[in-house]
Amino acid sequence: MTIPDKKKLIDAHERIKPFIHRTPVLTSSSINYISGLDLYFKCENFQKIGAFKIRGACNAVFSKDEAQLKNGVATHSSGNHAQALAYAANVRKIPAFIVMPENAPKVKVDAVRGYGAEIFFCEASQESRESTIAKILLETGAVYVHPFNDYQIIAGQSTAARELIEQVQDLDIIITPVGGGGLLSGTALAAKYFSSGTRVMAGEPEGANDAYLSFTSGKLISNKNVDTIADGLLTNLGDRNFEIIKEHVDQIITVADDEIISAMKLLWERMKIVIEPSGAVPLAAILKSKKEFNGKRVGVILSGGNVDLGKLPF
Amino acid sequence: MTIPDKKKLIDAHERIKPFIHRTPVLTSSSINYISGLDLYFKCENFQKIGAFKIRGACNAVFSKDEAQLKNGVATHSSGNHAQALAYAANVRKIPAFIVMPENAPKVKVDAVRGYGAEIFFCEASQESRESTIAKILLETGAVYVHPFNDYQIIAGQSTAARELIEQVQDLDIIITPVGGGGLLSGTALAAKYFSSGTRVMAGEPEGANDAYLSFTSGKLISNKNVDTIADGLLTNLGDRNFEIIKEHVDQIITVADDEIISAMKLLWERMKIVIEPSGAVPLAAILKSKKEFNGKRVGVILSGGNVDLGKLPF
Repeated sequence: MTIPDKKKLIDAHERIKPFIHRTPVLTSSSINYISGLDLYFKCENFQKIGAFKIRGACNAVFSKDEAQLKNGVATHSSGNHAQALAYAANVRKIPAFIVMPENAPKVKVDAVRGYGAEIFFCEASQESRESTIAKILLETGAVYVHPFNDYQIIAGQSTAARELIEQVQDLDIIITPVGGGGLLSGTALAAKYFSSGTRVMAGEPEGANDAYLSFTSGKLISNKNVDTIADGLLTNLGDRNFEIIKEHVDQIITVADDEIISAMKLLWERMKIVIEPSGAVPLAAILKSKKEFNGKRVGVILSGGNVDLGKLPF
Repeated sequence: MTIPDKKKLIDAHERIKPFIHRTPVLTSSSINYISGLDLYFKCENFQKIGAFKIRGACNAVFSKDEAQLKNGVATHSSGNHAQALAYAANVRKIPAFIVMPENAPKVKVDAVRGYGAEIFFCEASQESRESTIAKILLETGAVYVHPFNDYQIIAGQSTAARELIEQVQDLDIIITPVGGGGLLSGTALAAKYFSSGTRVMAGEPEGANDAYLSFTSGKLISNKNVDTIADGLLTNLGDRNFEIIKEHVDQIITVADDEIISAMKLLWERMKIVIEPSGAVPLAAILKSKKEFNGKRVGVILSGGNVDLGKLPF
């Protein structure tokens, strides 16, 4: 497998269209007024399963043939990828085996179970996750679908930016959050193929800044320890993702948790939409580095809205 | 003044169009699946100032002539009407004097002040509100704009239902919350003039059930005391509103606070939108009385999304 070309991105989009929403792009005169900027929010919080992850999971599942899928699919995830893969497998009527940490939010566990997936709980450590998924793969013969370090996933995630490019003309910048790098690398490819004048940037939590460190040093660096409210962005960048990001991303801006919470609150209060902390990271980055965005038409991918309403930071 | 006729409603809509959003109608496959119903949500939480109240306030302000408005407008309100009138006055460039109880949420006080209105604080009692506004009217010579018991306000509020009728064909039922009755009476007139086959219903909190009592007894009955989380629905029905409601509304369903909170949580979690407790009352009523709505196409007016994020009920 190599980096997806333009045709692969178009194929991915056609493939997943029946199963996803073409989410709306919203603007907020009040946030534009407060920031003095010109922002276009691609609302993946309104996406099926509440996050963009369904795009990659559907492309991964529906690009494989029946023989490959005869024993189902499996992954480990505490979050949106778990729901996304469970949903895609349910639509394709194949089994899904999902390893989740025992401290995963109940609402996410219930959602995964609701899509008919079989759940295996592990300890919250990376080691326990990996040994548990290895055991499940051996026992079930299911195909492992990585949450981000996978070209079919990357091609799937690229479709959010492709839609945004179709929905809003002449964007100067598109900004996404970055965790493992699936959305950011997909967005970088979409801009390159479909809107070559558009620069791609990312926001990243200071408490899990491996993408920033990798991007500025030019070599893949892992997080030593992670500490951020943006629970969707804790993972280390994948090498396939980094390869694309290194080449096609313009800038990565890190933000502190209080900046993430302020941006999240602004989105909730002014736009009346529910956004998870990870989804507010790009706006936090924009508000922190206003000069970079001044006078520009900026597309912002609001990545998801799955949040535990009982544990809000405000 | 008499009950607005069809032309008055059309005039009101044309008059306010430049100043309001035509809010979207959203559907939720997940809420439809859970409820087994066919629901269309008119999202007035996305309206300017975060609630439908801007419709009535704009119609009241822009239907008056310059001579009437030379000393500005005034009202007493702890909530969305205060913001709405302040906004409308700001657009028309006239002064606004707003009496607010000293315990009004800071976010609402800030918003009113942000639109350039002058605020006068009073005690939280009805007596203090009324004596304070009386004093302000004497001192300023401003025109009093009642939040609901006013035909221009009613004509303004009717425009939400008129848009909903244009956006979704063949609705069997439209349901709104009821407090003072501005939205409900306006909706009843809109259905009567623009979609005579559509029945109009309302949800009301059990803890402020004067509209239910008035509707079932046929005579205007006030709340003895009020106790509900739906802070936008505490007021007594106006007599002008009741006159219309008595004639043109089909049913009023009362709901307990725990039912309101469940419906609110469902809207937040499944639709990823921010709705205030009052706005969740119609969905609570629908879920409580599912039989009434079974097999019907039901339009639901989500009245607003102004909620104190620091004081959520979940």
